[in-house]
Amino acid sequence: METKAVNYRAAFEAAVETVREEGRYRIFRDIRRKAGAFPRATWFKDDKSEQNITVWCSNDYLGMGQNPCVVEAVKSAVDAAGTGSGGTRNISGTTRYHVQLEAELADLHDKDAALVLTSGYVANEATLGVMSKILPGLVILSDEMNHASMISGIQRARCEKVIFKHNDLADLEAKLKKIPADQPKLIAFESVYSMDADIAPIEQICDLADKYGALTYIDEVHAVGMYGPHGGGVAEERGLMDRIDIIQGTLAKAYGMVGGYIAADSVIIDAVRSTASGFIFTTSIPPSTAAGALRSVKVLKQTPEKREQHQERANELKSRLRAGGYNFIDGDTHIVPLMVGDPVKCQAISDTLINDYGIYAQAINYPTVPRGTERLRFTPSPFHDDIMMDELMSALETVWAEYGLKREKVA
Amino acid sequence: METKAVNYRAAFEAAVETVREEGRYRIFRDIRRKAGAFPRATWFKDDKSEQNITVWCSNDYLGMGQNPCVVEAVKSAVDAAGTGSGGTRNISGTTRYHVQLEAELADLHDKDAALVLTSGYVANEATLGVMSKILPGLVILSDEMNHASMISGIQRARCEKVIFKHNDLADLEAKLKKIPADQPKLIAFESVYSMDADIAPIEQICDLADKYGALTYIDEVHAVGMYGPHGGGVAEERGLMDRIDIIQGTLAKAYGMVGGYIAADSVIIDAVRSTASGFIFTTSIPPSTAAGALRSVKVLKQTPEKREQHQERANELKSRLRAGGYNFIDGDTHIVPLMVGDPVKCQAISDTLINDYGIYAQAINYPTVPRGTERLRFTPSPFHDDIMMDELMSALETVWAEYGLKREKVA
Ligand SMILES: Cc1ncc(COP(=O)(O)O)c(C=O)c1O
Ligand SMILES: Cc1ncc(COP(=O)(O)O)c(C=O)c1O
Repeated sequence: METKAVNYRAAFEAAVETVREEGRYRIFRDIRRKAGAFPRATWFKDDKSEQNITVWCSNDYLGMGQNPCVVEAVKSAVDAAGTGSGGTRNISGTTRYHVQLEAELADLHDKDAALVLTSGYVANEATLGVMSKILPGLVILSDEMNHASMISGIQRARCEKVIFKHNDLADLEAKLKKIPADQPKLIAFESVYSMDADIAPIEQICDLADKYGALTYIDEVHAVGMYGPHGGGVAEERGLMDRIDIIQGTLAKAYGMVGGYIAADSVIIDAVRSTASGFIFTTSIPPSTAAGALRSVKVLKQTPEKREQHQERANELKSRLRAGGYNFIDGDTHIVPLMVGDPVKCQAISDTLINDYGIYAQAINYPTVPRGTERLRFTPSPFHDDIMMDELMSALETVWAEYGLKREKVA
Repeated sequence: METKAVNYRAAFEAAVETVREEGRYRIFRDIRRKAGAFPRATWFKDDKSEQNITVWCSNDYLGMGQNPCVVEAVKSAVDAAGTGSGGTRNISGTTRYHVQLEAELADLHDKDAALVLTSGYVANEATLGVMSKILPGLVILSDEMNHASMISGIQRARCEKVIFKHNDLADLEAKLKKIPADQPKLIAFESVYSMDADIAPIEQICDLADKYGALTYIDEVHAVGMYGPHGGGVAEERGLMDRIDIIQGTLAKAYGMVGGYIAADSVIIDAVRSTASGFIFTTSIPPSTAAGALRSVKVLKQTPEKREQHQERANELKSRLRAGGYNFIDGDTHIVPLMVGDPVKCQAISDTLINDYGIYAQAINYPTVPRGTERLRFTPSPFHDDIMMDELMSALETVWAEYGLKREKVA
């Protein structure tokens, strides 16, 4: 790299420097979760010492990553079938476990069929990316707050793209109105937006889709497993699954595994399966991953009490923050963003919390959230008990004073 | 979907129909591998019956997916840390296992650093996709036979792209010559091309890269674990690792797990880590996947005899095919493509082999290979013993006659 006419090293250094200057250079915290003790974990520090911590920022929202049934399903599938799948889906990489998982996911969302991809990211990117090939002349209407993976898929599609204001029905309608009736349209949005903890007006979006003849694509990554009588997501909770053409989800958050999927009419699944490069040309998920996910989906279908406990814990944290006069986003979901509003302070507070209190809440800065809205994002699970809440509230009390952050007087 | 002004269903149906017409509609075979008995497996047929089969087309090239050490590493990590990682690398998804795996991979390729991504596909797509952002004005020179994931990454990069003829140094040089000396260039190619079983002239490509001041990017997906004294790939075997700027590999083939990676100078890794959307915004691989891969890489570093056995088995199959006068690609690698040259026959032969003989070799048709070069692709592993070879040769004998395929008279 050094000896070449172009100074490549300088270019790579400059790229990293830009990230640093924007305050978004990341140092990954090296942790080890302890199965059975989650959210307790060990943090391996740079100085080689270890510290016990409580993880407050995991997306293993329900702790299913340590659920004994899921752990057992993974281990027994490893024993039965080995580790990797050894192939793409077409070349020896389709197994019983994959087939059963897809059937289960189709059933979960009350659709004909489902397709498992290597991640939620790839599910969005590969599916949206291929839509314009299938639907010539397609225009994709995309919520401005959509996740990077949807944006990447839409870029891949290289078709006309219209961004509508976040959850703004009037803006969406104004934009739909301008598109000729006979032009194919797809509205892409999320149910639970994971950084602002708000929920899309799904029913009204579906109404607009009907009125203007658009397909609907929903990302329920932060909702599957956690909402709806069987964990089918917010669309299930609101009885709207049949009004969504493509439901996308992940196996990596509430289900405690890894992998992503879409569920839809069988002809849609067949078209995506047959044309999406990101699905076709990659090794399928391991049989044991499919087995663990299958078990997790089944367990969460049958245990609504886990969802109730989860909401109870989130409400507990929110009511404590409310009582303490903290500035947080007091929404209807399980995600609790505590606002700091300054990137340097946000990082420093996160560092202080983990160093001095063993509380791990990652600082969320630009570009994940807009500048000026830097925050700590808490995700209480059913395993975050009152003692942990006490520890957290007492740490916040001190740290908020230390950093001179305002709290509202509460009567 | 039915009631809308645009006939969406018809569009999805047409997409599937096109795939069918091109003879590339795929029916995935539903199998179950038996750990410990690989390549023996069970095939679940559409009529619900089961059949014992021998898998001849797995990319678990060395059978590491059933290696007891690897299986044990996966299971004990699941016991220790649970199933999923629960987060992106930046938000609680970096664990001891990830850190150790990256150190091990860096060491394997004698580089400063490595970065693990969710798959080999994503490693190519995310890394190549971000290169033009880091290196403004970049032109990527890409071998015409490069894998879909590299092509997808290059498309994402949206920079100038120059395709050179497969493994053709004169063409590559002619194309390099035309690009101004001060314009950043990157040559992207594979070591082992998995469908034609041939190997790139790595040293000469590096010479050209030096002469014209280009960076080099190699995909060693079908070589890592299998070539080189420690399994570092063909670049290790030929003593060329230090001449490649970015080495990309997978954990899903010879290593028997899932996931992908790049290894490079630390500033390159830092730049990719900090800017590539496909790395940043997705859940990291499970701790147990990292643990299994770590063990597999370590085992294969220390057991060159597995690589020798592998080559011995591949040579055995090639010499039997040679003796039988079959038309196959008689290359220097472990991959043995047996030519059929007709998509319908190729599929029919594959069906006959599995139905009548329990021999599973997937038909490889267009677009994976050019039309007219349809083939069965055999990947003998150290576990494909002489009895299995006998079974295969005797089945081929009958089937080749049945389908009227030519064999050369051998003296
Ligand atoms: C809204 C949304 N969609 C998709 C993804 C990607 O899912 P996965 O982590 O399974 O790749 C994420 C986060 O990771 C997300 O927040
Ligand atoms: C040359 C090449 N690169 C990359 C990949 C993708 O690797 P993975 O299966 O780990 O996604 C493959 C095949 O799957 C391949 O053949």
